[in-house]
Amino acid sequence: MNPPVAHPVNDAVRLSVDCMGGDHGPSVTLPACRAFLNAHPQAQLILVGKADALAEAAQWERCTVVAASEVVEMDDPIEVALRKKKDSSLRVALSQLKAGPDGQAPKAHVCVSAGNTGALMAVARYLLKTMEGIDRPAIATVMPNERDGFTTVLDLGANVDCSPEHLLQFAVMGSALVSAVEGKDNPTVGLLNIGEEVIKGSETIKKAGELLRAAAEGDHINFYGNVEGNDIFKGTTDIVVCDGFVGNVALKTAEGLIATLVGFIKQEFSRNLFTKMAAVAALPVLNSLKRRIDPRRFNGAALLGLRGLVFKSHGSADAFAFEGALNRAYDAARNCLLDRVHDQIQETLQAMPPGLTAEESANSGDAALAA
Amino acid sequence: MNPPVAHPVNDAVRLSVDCMGGDHGPSVTLPACRAFLNAHPQAQLILVGKADALAEAAQWERCTVVAASEVVEMDDPIEVALRKKKDSSLRVALSQLKAGPDGQAPKAHVCVSAGNTGALMAVARYLLKTMEGIDRPAIATVMPNERDGFTTVLDLGANVDCSPEHLLQFAVMGSALVSAVEGKDNPTVGLLNIGEEVIKGSETIKKAGELLRAAAEGDHINFYGNVEGNDIFKGTTDIVVCDGFVGNVALKTAEGLIATLVGFIKQEFSRNLFTKMAAVAALPVLNSLKRRIDPRRFNGAALLGLRGLVFKSHGSADAFAFEGALNRAYDAARNCLLDRVHDQIQETLQAMPPGLTAEESANSGDAALAA
Repeated sequence: MNPPVAHPVNDAVRLSVDCMGGDHGPSVTLPACRAFLNAHPQAQLILVGKADALAEAAQWERCTVVAASEVVEMDDPIEVALRKKKDSSLRVALSQLKAGPDGQAPKAHVCVSAGNTGALMAVARYLLKTMEGIDRPAIATVMPNERDGFTTVLDLGANVDCSPEHLLQFAVMGSALVSAVEGKDNPTVGLLNIGEEVIKGSETIKKAGELLRAAAEGDHINFYGNVEGNDIFKGTTDIVVCDGFVGNVALKTAEGLIATLVGFIKQEFSRNLFTKMAAVAALPVLNSLKRRIDPRRFNGAALLGLRGLVFKSHGSADAFAFEGALNRAYDAARNCLLDRVHDQIQETLQAMPPGLTAEESANSGDAALAA
Repeated sequence: MNPPVAHPVNDAVRLSVDCMGGDHGPSVTLPACRAFLNAHPQAQLILVGKADALAEAAQWERCTVVAASEVVEMDDPIEVALRKKKDSSLRVALSQLKAGPDGQAPKAHVCVSAGNTGALMAVARYLLKTMEGIDRPAIATVMPNERDGFTTVLDLGANVDCSPEHLLQFAVMGSALVSAVEGKDNPTVGLLNIGEEVIKGSETIKKAGELLRAAAEGDHINFYGNVEGNDIFKGTTDIVVCDGFVGNVALKTAEGLIATLVGFIKQEFSRNLFTKMAAVAALPVLNSLKRRIDPRRFNGAALLGLRGLVFKSHGSADAFAFEGALNRAYDAARNCLLDRVHDQIQETLQAMPPGLTAEESANSGDAALAA
């Protein structure tokens, strides 16, 4: 492979952090980095951003500041991030994942940014390139489920019009992610469909089902079968694989519904004096409920299929949430996610019957997402 | 047109009811019909099912019992409903919407069933045929939104791989539905996408956006633009149009999330003596909240684009929910939904630029849904 995959060393994991990204920039990212360093004595950080904004961090232990003079704004078009702002914190942070000109190991093992998703994916693809055997990188995130665990869903909107081969690649990459970050061996994979039966769904989905079954027969993935939208929250499978359009709609629908329900709960409890007193009585319960569905607890989406590990924080993340994304990135790097994805993809592709190997589709159909 | 569209008379709306459909059959449908008749002095019912099961209803005023010797079970394959059980209550109830052999008006203005969705759609298509200008009938349902109203979403899974033309037809039919049932003039239409910008989404969605804008320029629909999953619950538009695969995933995701959250709330309030006391204090608030998200309140999905009006109740509906479906069906018939859909489709298609008129797609791709 060229450039080489970063191999985390056992004693120190280095994260490069785009400190300017997101809605709040250093006022959120720096406190998060500080807390993260305190909690992880083995970790080292490369903090990227405007020198004056990061001045306080220059003195921190296990910390290097790398200056970048520009910032990709949340509403900057991808073209601007890609072609104009060549000294952006987003780009400089990603470039820490590249091998040196003489084959030196990359400076960082993983990069974290809360910047514009479309820009992050586009610049990451441009700088790092996709991994051998992968047509399209995917975005994977987690949602809470009834089993008090998380369901990993991919793709979340990096790709529209996915082919069956893409969905197979997502299944393999998602399995590697869950193994590395959640520590689960042989996690189960569900194919998102409109019914459980094999005959349900579009031609693409039916063909994807065939590919996933073939991969499962070769023990490359642990394929459960078709799942439906409600299975995401039931936790029927560890991983749910879908087209980026469908995954993005499902994620936004779920986020929107949670916001609406939280609004309903607030309205009902503040209706009159009696309901306000009830709210006081119910406060510990409501807080406990809030914690369970708190999106800050599962912040940190993985960009999978690149020749470097990239994690995306929500743009609106606060310090607690951004630290969560740093934690997930740290776990992924420490557990060699990049090598796992690489090895599992190669194994699976080599074992698949001829004619089923991945090839770049004519219609690459990348969808640029707003952050 | 042939067969003729049913024109509801002013003084009496006649509903045919598949009394055997759904998980509970007559034990739910008969009490619902009884309550519905009491509330609607202008309504007449044609109750279809096994004679002995419907014996008590034979004496009711404004009520006719029509015997059907068979029942389509919830797990019967579509083939069985279509080719084997030719005297099923589902089929006989639908046949009340057909014109007589000498052009007599149909016996009923609208049909309601809680039976298997796939079977209902297939038999309805076979018996009634699709309306002129419609390639594929769609299933439309409503979800509650933050504006204390409902958002109508279609298609919900009758069709996968929809073309731009299909999405335009859904927009027109959905507009007619909301005008007729909710009494809203000129309801707004959103196109479900992964971003608000015109350039977002798959080629199909971008082309659909063009068609919808053209239809809006001709004042045939009130097109808002692209919407995202969270806009369904925000109530950004009255209608959200999408491919049946995407709509089905969004609906199931929302239903699953509500079920999970209700489970979380119950768990948290029953954790210990203190939380149980808090639950008692909060009971009126919780009940009020429950009422707002109660799926029984928005039961009754419309099958649109057929030469007859058909409403589908949830299979698990209780009498309250089934009565809700009867109410929606009654409002639709009373407000001439069938004529509205027909007229608006013809108007829109005639006005669209050449090359944009609908044509039957080679890949009809119907998806049979479980009930």
